[in-house]
Amino acid sequence: MIDKFFVLEADHSGGARAGVLHTGHGVINTPVFMPVGTYGAVKSLSPIELKETGSQIILGNAYHLYIRPGLETIKEMGGLHNFIGWDRPILTDSGGFQVFSLAKIREIDDDGVTFRDHVDGTKHRFTPSIVMNVERTIGADIIMAFDECAPYPSSLDYVYKAERRTAKWAALSKESFESSKPFYGDEQFLFGIVQGGTYKELREKSAKEIVSLGFDGYAVGGLAVGEPEDIMYEICEFNTSLLPNDKPRYIMGVGRPKDLIECVARGIDMFDCVIPTRNGRKGTVYTKSGKLNLNNSKYKTDKDPIEEGCACSSCKSYSKGYLRHLFKMKETLAGRAATLHNLHYFNTLMSDMRKAIVGGNFDDFRAEFYSEIGEKE
Amino acid sequence: MIDKFFVLEADHSGGARAGVLHTGHGVINTPVFMPVGTYGAVKSLSPIELKETGSQIILGNAYHLYIRPGLETIKEMGGLHNFIGWDRPILTDSGGFQVFSLAKIREIDDDGVTFRDHVDGTKHRFTPSIVMNVERTIGADIIMAFDECAPYPSSLDYVYKAERRTAKWAALSKESFESSKPFYGDEQFLFGIVQGGTYKELREKSAKEIVSLGFDGYAVGGLAVGEPEDIMYEICEFNTSLLPNDKPRYIMGVGRPKDLIECVARGIDMFDCVIPTRNGRKGTVYTKSGKLNLNNSKYKTDKDPIEEGCACSSCKSYSKGYLRHLFKMKETLAGRAATLHNLHYFNTLMSDMRKAIVGGNFDDFRAEFYSEIGEKE
Repeated sequence: MIDKFFVLEADHSGGARAGVLHTGHGVINTPVFMPVGTYGAVKSLSPIELKETGSQIILGNAYHLYIRPGLETIKEMGGLHNFIGWDRPILTDSGGFQVFSLAKIREIDDDGVTFRDHVDGTKHRFTPSIVMNVERTIGADIIMAFDECAPYPSSLDYVYKAERRTAKWAALSKESFESSKPFYGDEQFLFGIVQGGTYKELREKSAKEIVSLGFDGYAVGGLAVGEPEDIMYEICEFNTSLLPNDKPRYIMGVGRPKDLIECVARGIDMFDCVIPTRNGRKGTVYTKSGKLNLNNSKYKTDKDPIEEGCACSSCKSYSKGYLRHLFKMKETLAGRAATLHNLHYFNTLMSDMRKAIVGGNFDDFRAEFYSEIGEKE
Repeated sequence: MIDKFFVLEADHSGGARAGVLHTGHGVINTPVFMPVGTYGAVKSLSPIELKETGSQIILGNAYHLYIRPGLETIKEMGGLHNFIGWDRPILTDSGGFQVFSLAKIREIDDDGVTFRDHVDGTKHRFTPSIVMNVERTIGADIIMAFDECAPYPSSLDYVYKAERRTAKWAALSKESFESSKPFYGDEQFLFGIVQGGTYKELREKSAKEIVSLGFDGYAVGGLAVGEPEDIMYEICEFNTSLLPNDKPRYIMGVGRPKDLIECVARGIDMFDCVIPTRNGRKGTVYTKSGKLNLNNSKYKTDKDPIEEGCACSSCKSYSKGYLRHLFKMKETLAGRAATLHNLHYFNTLMSDMRKAIVGGNFDDFRAEFYSEIGEKE
């Protein structure tokens, strides 16, 4: 798989890298932000709008899609790309995180998890081989191994046990993946997930084991689950130092704009997070000078767009005053307009970082980001 | 105002007519359907999407806009067109219907209504001159006189009293309108509303009085409030026979696709109704062969669009199977896609009727509509 990803340019003074990942549904330029579309759709946006924001790849969730609409429907409809009308790459999370956080009455054993779903309590079983079949059937371009993500804070012993299970399940995921084939012809990649919480000794152990199995890419899992930001950055940097240079690196569930910059600086290529979409639906929007809440009464008669000079269609169409009115009326156009702006902001931040890395001035870019945004997130 | 509207072609065997209405925000080709955008926005759609559906003019509501965002905000933002980013015509309903149906603790006297609003119970007073100022300030191209719409069924005595008040308020509306000027420069039209319920003698009395005042257009009010369809058609036909030929005629709150055809056949030029938007958000969509409910499990793996051959962007983008999934997930894209399709259907129905009238084959068009749709609505 090595030839499918190559690092175009690495920042000489740090870990930031610009790369290219070739998939069956087109090229992904890294660093990249991946909007979250749990059930297929990125909430409130159409596929055309998603492309308009510069989104190169979206995330689906194996647990959610397995529950609704279910594998039979997805198979019958020709895979998730066809079903949702999205012809660019899709990555599916294995659903490990959701099984542990959403499902009711779960019983974990060394081979997998038995659980009742959060919708109508039906009993299901997920094992690495079952999950590989789920993700193969969904038809994602990038499939995540089945893992266990320990919450924060957790004891060394708890994180150790989750790491042991993750290592075993990674091997079984790979075995199942390799003994099966893509359902719809397009090549699929399998990414391994490193766990180990905030314990460096466990991170090291996990990274060694996962890397030794040989995956198409590697994820830093188990961060952005409540730990302080300096610890997240420290563990991220430590973890990427343990990963091969010639494979894409993905930090799961991260993050705020500054987190994207700090993690790119520490060698991360891929990100996903609900922040731009979930916060957008609630009225929080991101700009170069920080975030702002459109529900605030000070925007009542504000005739300016969210961000002056922004090229997104929301900023070309709506004033902050009108968006505030729409949020007050609980009109869905409001959340859509804010989501669209936010994804445009996040994707532009990524492509600007990429340009800076390729141009050899990532440090300047990072400094400028902080000088514009000040101490705000 | 006569020169602002002219009847391009009238159907020789019946009452159907094709016309052109010139407004300060462009030309309206009639017969026309006007999507309802109570608070400014037509729910779930952007102005660009509204245009894509072929919408020529939208409706706003004086009562709702007066409560939220309020006149001061609308004035400060340069009028409703600027506020919502819609550069085509807008018609505002006077809010009479809402004062009587939504507001709490209302006291009607001969000069107006005192009421507490449905949002936070603040006390307000609406009189014809106050309402004219509200609609002038909103900046609608077409302003409706302040009226009282009697519910169905109502006694002759009740409808008589409402008709008396409507006549008095129509005169006062016109007086206020004529002694004031447009706020933002663009010409505004004032339409009178005929009431009288289903009592022909009151319809006749009301029509005479309203027409004698001389308005830029005339609305048939007080129908589509629960009366049987044959009565609605009968009163509609009777009412239009009492209106001048050289002014646009608008039936308020109508209707289903067949109602549009039947009322065009009876001389109506303009329509508004929440059916395509409200029903769309709930999953009901309109096609040439009748309406269908996308929540139905039979569409689970249906790969076809809502209507084969439909030119709307929803039909070009989504299968019924995917839309059903989105409705099950309560994803707002579903309601948006269905609303967009429905408005495209309604607007296309109107423009097809117009073509048929101009081409002299409206009767054939009407017969074909029924042969395709069968007995369904």
